[in-house]
Amino acid sequence: MIKNLERIKDNSLHSLVVGANEAASWIQDGMTLGLSGFTRAGDAKAVPFALVERAKKEDFKVNIFTGASLGSDIDKLLSEAGIINKRLPFQADATMRKNINAGKHLFVDQHLSHTAEMIRSGALPEIDFAIVEAISITSDGMIIPTTSVGNSLTFVSQAKNIIVEINLGHSELLEGLHDLYEPADQGEREPIPVTKVDDRIGTMGIPFDSAKIRGIVFTEHIDSPSTIVSPDFETEEIAQHLITFLREEVKAGRFTNKLAPIQSGIGSVANAVLHGMIDSEFEDLQVYSEVLQDSVFDLIDAGKVNFASACSITLSGKKMEQVYGNFEKYRDQLILRPQEITNHPEIIRRLGLIAINTALEFDIYGNVNSTHVSGTKMMNGIGGSGDFARNSRVAIFVTKSIAKGGNISSIVPFVAHVDHTEHDVDVVVTEQGYVDLRGLAPRERAELIIENCAHPHYKEQLSHYYEEALTRGGQTPHVLEKAFSFHTNLAEHGTMLEKLV
Amino acid sequence: MIKNLERIKDNSLHSLVVGANEAASWIQDGMTLGLSGFTRAGDAKAVPFALVERAKKEDFKVNIFTGASLGSDIDKLLSEAGIINKRLPFQADATMRKNINAGKHLFVDQHLSHTAEMIRSGALPEIDFAIVEAISITSDGMIIPTTSVGNSLTFVSQAKNIIVEINLGHSELLEGLHDLYEPADQGEREPIPVTKVDDRIGTMGIPFDSAKIRGIVFTEHIDSPSTIVSPDFETEEIAQHLITFLREEVKAGRFTNKLAPIQSGIGSVANAVLHGMIDSEFEDLQVYSEVLQDSVFDLIDAGKVNFASACSITLSGKKMEQVYGNFEKYRDQLILRPQEITNHPEIIRRLGLIAINTALEFDIYGNVNSTHVSGTKMMNGIGGSGDFARNSRVAIFVTKSIAKGGNISSIVPFVAHVDHTEHDVDVVVTEQGYVDLRGLAPRERAELIIENCAHPHYKEQLSHYYEEALTRGGQTPHVLEKAFSFHTNLAEHGTMLEKLV
Ligand SMILES: CC(C)(COP(=O)(O)OP(=O)(O)OC[C@H]1O[C@@H](n2cnc3c(N)ncnc32)[C@H](O)[C@@H]1OP(=O)(O)O)[C@@H](O)C(=O)NCCC(=O)NCCS
Ligand SMILES: CC(C)(COP(=O)(O)OP(=O)(O)OC[C@H]1O[C@@H](n2cnc3c(N)ncnc32)[C@H](O)[C@@H]1OP(=O)(O)O)[C@@H](O)C(=O)NCCC(=O)NCCS
Repeated sequence: MIKNLERIKDNSLHSLVVGANEAASWIQDGMTLGLSGFTRAGDAKAVPFALVERAKKEDFKVNIFTGASLGSDIDKLLSEAGIINKRLPFQADATMRKNINAGKHLFVDQHLSHTAEMIRSGALPEIDFAIVEAISITSDGMIIPTTSVGNSLTFVSQAKNIIVEINLGHSELLEGLHDLYEPADQGEREPIPVTKVDDRIGTMGIPFDSAKIRGIVFTEHIDSPSTIVSPDFETEEIAQHLITFLREEVKAGRFTNKLAPIQSGIGSVANAVLHGMIDSEFEDLQVYSEVLQDSVFDLIDAGKVNFASACSITLSGKKMEQVYGNFEKYRDQLILRPQEITNHPEIIRRLGLIAINTALEFDIYGNVNSTHVSGTKMMNGIGGSGDFARNSRVAIFVTKSIAKGGNISSIVPFVAHVDHTEHDVDVVVTEQGYVDLRGLAPRERAELIIENCAHPHYKEQLSHYYEEALTRGGQTPHVLEKAFSFHTNLAEHGTMLEKLV
Repeated sequence: MIKNLERIKDNSLHSLVVGANEAASWIQDGMTLGLSGFTRAGDAKAVPFALVERAKKEDFKVNIFTGASLGSDIDKLLSEAGIINKRLPFQADATMRKNINAGKHLFVDQHLSHTAEMIRSGALPEIDFAIVEAISITSDGMIIPTTSVGNSLTFVSQAKNIIVEINLGHSELLEGLHDLYEPADQGEREPIPVTKVDDRIGTMGIPFDSAKIRGIVFTEHIDSPSTIVSPDFETEEIAQHLITFLREEVKAGRFTNKLAPIQSGIGSVANAVLHGMIDSEFEDLQVYSEVLQDSVFDLIDAGKVNFASACSITLSGKKMEQVYGNFEKYRDQLILRPQEITNHPEIIRRLGLIAINTALEFDIYGNVNSTHVSGTKMMNGIGGSGDFARNSRVAIFVTKSIAKGGNISSIVPFVAHVDHTEHDVDVVVTEQGYVDLRGLAPRERAELIIENCAHPHYKEQLSHYYEEALTRGGQTPHVLEKAFSFHTNLAEHGTMLEKLV
């Protein structure tokens, strides 16, 4: 077994070093595990792998709570092994998704700022084991996380037992990057003192009760690279429309060229859109986000972004090499915080963020579906999109106007699942154009959304629906028996298009 | 004209006293008015009445922004007069509702904590005239509001012109009740320092720029009484189930008998449910709410509630007499704040409220419709229900399981409009029973909601839907072509029931 005891600066803990298999053997049927990990970054790896091995010879089931999605195929392996009872609050794995949608195990989709609060208040099962990846353990009793913080602070403070995975694959240069702050119980709590993107308010590591440390495992398995694809014609168009919108905001005197701190969601589209700002006139930008994808580092390199706060760093393989190979260059421009703080309504509203997230589909009234393909099949989860959209100063949703070669219109009469209601959506953007929905009534929204955002192939079909709906009246006119006709068409005929164009 | 110049303690303003007709004559076509008023309390009355008179002889249209709904039939009269272009953020008038649903004027439904923020940041049209009801104007330049605060602070700070309506019908004893605090711009803002329900953080009145005061009008028209109806068998049952839920929370160690500060929504159901706590074991309660209805004062009288913070006091005629006739008794147990503060996510989350709001309907997965009858016709608006549900510690929605003599089931396969998503709804209660949804996956939710909350007449129909949906699979199984079958049945046959029982 690879190990490096210098990473455990409190010598009294050296005796707790064990192999991953031994640590995995402590987990019992029915337990709840709190794993570090957020969008493929900083996930506990060795013990989950060992648990999957154990499952080959033994029947047991556990609840898996994390920060967000895991990498290294851990969600896939856990799901295939059949040892998951309940998974929360987010995942993004194709196999796990399939098993969730087949009803093979339960998945609870939560706002990412809510999980820690629910654990502390006892509204979720108690955490039996926190299993968290670390760079090191300090001599003064702190676990230094790696490339994400996620819910690890709360898992460690609330769990009955703690297993630390020290990952030698991460550079010790990451030390000093993190800022750990956990609010007191509700009702006993002071304001969270972040008032600027770069405020440090906590400790550089996760404090722990050493009596709860059951074991320390070594690994050197590095994070999985992200799987985002490069900008394409449509995402570049989306970026241009977004820039036009922001430029108009500056013209109207609502922002300066420094804009406001930016949050940008996960996935290829959001990454590409943010990347598009490289050639814009905006400057001295700050990022207060959840995940830092490649584009944030491109913007730092281009001198456009001067500070970025988030809860994980999730990069492509190439970008990982560049960033971690030159980490001294970036260190002073970064903070990693718990997801409860990056996504906290208090701070998002105080800072007045510009939030850019990706929709699967939105409807003619501006309701957004971020999670359920055709209303029933879970994609990934709502993630932080609700935390940000509800509380930001400008909540922007982007998506391509069509998917699957045009068989799907991402603008529909009625979204088949609502994650963000019309009250929470300020601006919608597709490669066709954008609509600023602020202060618009539903009937005003519908006309503009169809006109500016829908794909030309679907405009007429959407207009027909809306015109028929108008004959029925109402604040939000609908023809309920046809509200999901786009989706049922797709299920029956493989396309949402009513007639071939 | 009735007047009492002693209520204007700054003598230099005496010359600005005018009649309501004159003040109304300043309003021009296309203007935006910011009126005081929140759930029938503290609304500007004289100038709106005069405006309605003027409309008999003249064509013009204005935008009407308020705190929330108005009393004294003002919304009805304005709507009938045909002088409204756009109304926001809430209304609760039968005539206005009809006109909105007929498309006669526009209505923008907003989270009540959002409007002030959007006005300050320039995302809504500028306020030409703030017209706010007051008890008095102090010698040091403050307008003392009456029975509500609403958005008046922001209207006054942002408007180009201000008209004050001094209402002699309100007792001067209300002075000292209010606590006015306006956050700085987003990005420049300190934490809002409320950490306890009874914290005072601002001034006792609304500071104003005297150069913007165009006129001062006197009136003695008192607030309209509320129209809530008394508890009935069903609401008493709902109250009992709610108490059972809270009792279980105490048993589980998640709360003490003091619970947490309570928010309770508008309407008859929420009032009756809160009233039901009079005979419970809970004590030393605090209220951090939006509107104080009769039941809060019943609870204060019974020694159950020791402090209540809100943004308006909306009472029945009888209760008004009792409360305002003995106001010295209640004064020290009350604070009235701007709706931006009563409904602010920062504070709701910090205090960890128990939020009780009324649904029109909820679905088998826990999504809630608070606003749109059959998905299209506006009832009142989302009000503060979203602010509270999203950010409270426990978000409870109550409703009777059936409406309209049983022709409507308030539990449906898919709500025809989503105001609160499954992510924001913790507990649902009907007179049949309750479900604690926290930590449950959609498939777990559906079974329990049908079993515990649906009316016996609709259980089988709902179960059939759910069973068919299960054959299609998914995280949130649905039969999209039948998802709104309850609603389309109602439209076609006058009942949601498939076969008569
Ligand atoms: C919505 C989300 C899935 C988009 O991801 P993305 O990588 O940017 O977007 P893509 O356009 O590549 O779409 C992903 C897939 O969804 C499909 N898709 C897109 N729109 C669709 C629609 N309306 N209906 C069905 N499928 C659709 C795409 O075809 C693609 O399918 P594929 O994987 O088989 O190629 C992703 O952003 C997400 O999970 N969001 C929710 C969580 C969130 O917003 N977090 C933000 C805070 S970090
Ligand atoms: C939902 C709401 C309308 C309920 O009001 P209420 O007075 O407690 O409830 P009631 O049971 O008397 O219902 C009001 C009406 O809706 C009807 N109704 C109830 N459920 C219905 C349903 N599922 N479909 C159609 N109509 C329904 C009732 O029959 C009643 O009709 P009537 O006025 O013709 O008699 C009200 O609470 C509201 O507007 N909520 C949204 C705003 C909010 O929650 N604010 C909270 C923060 S203050």
